[in-house]
Amino acid sequence: MNIPSSKHPRVVIVGGGFAGISFVKKLFNKPVQLVLLDKRNYHTFQPLLYQVSTSGLEPDSIAYPLRKILNKSNNSFFRLAEVHQILPENRTVETNIGSLVYDYLIIATGSKTNFFGNKNVEKNAVWMKSVPQALNLRSLILENFEQATITEDEDRRKALLNFVIAGAGPTGVELSGALAELKNHIVTKDYKDLNPDEIHVHLLEGEQRVLPPMSEKSSANAQRFLENLGVKVHTSTFVEDYQNNIVTTNTGKKFKTETFIWSAGVTGAPVRGLKAHAFVEKTNRYQVNQFNQVHGHEHIFAIGDIAIMQNEDYPNGHPMVAQPAIQQGEHLAKNLLLLLNNKSMKPFSYFDKGTMATIGRNKAVVDLGKIRFGGFSAWFVWMFVHLWFLVGFRNRIVTFFNWVYNYINYDRAARLIVRPFKTKRVEMNDAD
Amino acid sequence: MNIPSSKHPRVVIVGGGFAGISFVKKLFNKPVQLVLLDKRNYHTFQPLLYQVSTSGLEPDSIAYPLRKILNKSNNSFFRLAEVHQILPENRTVETNIGSLVYDYLIIATGSKTNFFGNKNVEKNAVWMKSVPQALNLRSLILENFEQATITEDEDRRKALLNFVIAGAGPTGVELSGALAELKNHIVTKDYKDLNPDEIHVHLLEGEQRVLPPMSEKSSANAQRFLENLGVKVHTSTFVEDYQNNIVTTNTGKKFKTETFIWSAGVTGAPVRGLKAHAFVEKTNRYQVNQFNQVHGHEHIFAIGDIAIMQNEDYPNGHPMVAQPAIQQGEHLAKNLLLLLNNKSMKPFSYFDKGTMATIGRNKAVVDLGKIRFGGFSAWFVWMFVHLWFLVGFRNRIVTFFNWVYNYINYDRAARLIVRPFKTKRVEMNDAD
Repeated sequence: MNIPSSKHPRVVIVGGGFAGISFVKKLFNKPVQLVLLDKRNYHTFQPLLYQVSTSGLEPDSIAYPLRKILNKSNNSFFRLAEVHQILPENRTVETNIGSLVYDYLIIATGSKTNFFGNKNVEKNAVWMKSVPQALNLRSLILENFEQATITEDEDRRKALLNFVIAGAGPTGVELSGALAELKNHIVTKDYKDLNPDEIHVHLLEGEQRVLPPMSEKSSANAQRFLENLGVKVHTSTFVEDYQNNIVTTNTGKKFKTETFIWSAGVTGAPVRGLKAHAFVEKTNRYQVNQFNQVHGHEHIFAIGDIAIMQNEDYPNGHPMVAQPAIQQGEHLAKNLLLLLNNKSMKPFSYFDKGTMATIGRNKAVVDLGKIRFGGFSAWFVWMFVHLWFLVGFRNRIVTFFNWVYNYINYDRAARLIVRPFKTKRVEMNDAD
Repeated sequence: MNIPSSKHPRVVIVGGGFAGISFVKKLFNKPVQLVLLDKRNYHTFQPLLYQVSTSGLEPDSIAYPLRKILNKSNNSFFRLAEVHQILPENRTVETNIGSLVYDYLIIATGSKTNFFGNKNVEKNAVWMKSVPQALNLRSLILENFEQATITEDEDRRKALLNFVIAGAGPTGVELSGALAELKNHIVTKDYKDLNPDEIHVHLLEGEQRVLPPMSEKSSANAQRFLENLGVKVHTSTFVEDYQNNIVTTNTGKKFKTETFIWSAGVTGAPVRGLKAHAFVEKTNRYQVNQFNQVHGHEHIFAIGDIAIMQNEDYPNGHPMVAQPAIQQGEHLAKNLLLLLNNKSMKPFSYFDKGTMATIGRNKAVVDLGKIRFGGFSAWFVWMFVHLWFLVGFRNRIVTFFNWVYNYINYDRAARLIVRPFKTKRVEMNDAD
């Protein structure tokens, strides 16, 4: 790869998610050469992908060009590249556009959807971890409504209008709430030839309550909010299979649906090449010490979802969400500068800023340490925090305006069917 | 098709472009049943497609859900359908979702790209008549820059950075200007490892001047503005061929390019089924009388680009742009109400509101009757008029905000590569 040589050590970062960009931003114009590799040319604000799927936001509002992040710095390079393999003995990464030697390698490849080995779910369900997948889901939902208006087969119509979501983490909860609002506010206005009572949203969760990582109070609030919107919540319910448009569960329930959305878990997205003992097989995450150094690899670090840093407080590592990724990225940048100055690195410690999820108009739940609250104030906090963390002034303004507009008008304005998804469902998910 | 029967006559409209939506809007809640058919679920504001291609605007800002337009009315239906054939003797249209009987049929299918029979251009060039095509072109332009940064083959790099546009009508002129601004403002900031001097934009035009339908003064202004931006304008230059990445012309010039954009003409996009004498073969447009009635078909009307109404002032019909389409749509709606009340219809007369084109930052040309002006004031008028005609309050605000943001920051913020276009170029164009 044609990166000019530099008198400074070369730091190669794989992945421009929360962890990767937090890391590079702290090293702009410092005595290192930064090379950021990503298979996409933009950073994705994953917590709002569900709003793209449900026509609330345009994709460009929640994505940000990676080159635009880097252009504030004169020591950094971006390459649109997919990393195939790491060769640690040569300090080299191999990519689809050639190989590159590093002095330090930062792995920030994040996570991917976890199907827990269920091949039928992987083949037939849909999910959203990327902008193209979210756009495909948007097209699928809208085309379902279109097809439901024209079909004369009652069974088919019911299957088209039945939405089943597996996994009641923040994504599943927020998506169910948004789908219920599409039904309540958009279908009633725009699809007058559909009967909105035929639209059903089912949320399935294996644990005993929704939002299992949150407090019991917030779980109970969230479930109440969802049910008020018309979402049918099924807890202690595991999905066993999905084929021929039928979801079957351990409780014997069957759901006939053409749209089964899988948001039941994630697993690390590692790169080939590191020794087996470098990662914890069960979760596919790299085992790192308190400095985010990958076990057995002095010059390789991992941050964010792909890293598992086990300690007393977090025996299973930190939660695979934005905050640990951001904090690890920033912390590692400081540590790297210490290391380059022959000083001792400082151990990472996670500052839990709280957890939140929104359920719909005026409704959210927030856990801030011992403080738990829900409803309008929580919804307000949720919006403020998400705007704050969105990358870029333009994105914040456009998102804010769209929220205000949608709020006042009970609207979801971005309702274009733009992607061809009709072929095979598996292609739809490949779309990243 | 399952449209309920009505005591009012059924008016079927094919196409939700400028003509189609201007027509239906005037008949909301009148004693007719409206059925709008379109193969897309949204109206496209075609004059701003070029800004989607060049990362200035998001697609959702220039498109508007057709159902949202119709939801203000209680006598109208939308169906996502592609019309295959008209059977005038049975007053029926056949579509991919079944057939539908009409009392009156309004054909508003618009135009498609005209390759003047050049098969190689059709196979190898790119063009943009739809949102998906504009998004594909955006991805192609951005990926060209990415590939140019990594290739070590100098010839290939030059071909990647050479943009050739055929046809200096408003689309070609506006696209060339926007590409030149991408080079001047974005590449210099974001692609520091590219040499912007290697990027060239060539605009080819068969006539002796750019913007041939406009005044000579405006043509001269536009050409000067383009050249100041760095666009190389080649007038009196016809394209003869494009293959193996080489554009050849009648003047013996050769351009090596991986991106040849064809905006050299449009032709009608008729539907199968009407008698041969109903349309003018050379332009593929339906011959209509002064009431927009298709020649030989009493119950069939055509409006917009697809209609050719020849009279003394317009021996070749009206220009294939937005204004005649909007005016014909509105006029026909009034005429139809007269017809239903057994009154005489009134002949259509076109009110020419003028022609304009923008070339870039602060630069545009406007012809308003005898008044011709260019520069900043024209640019301001251009922006105002385009915002005025954009459909929807949200779209206007978001577009306006993006323009202000891009203007202040010399930015083009929507720079995501989101569509897979790498396979075959021909698929890229099929993407509508």
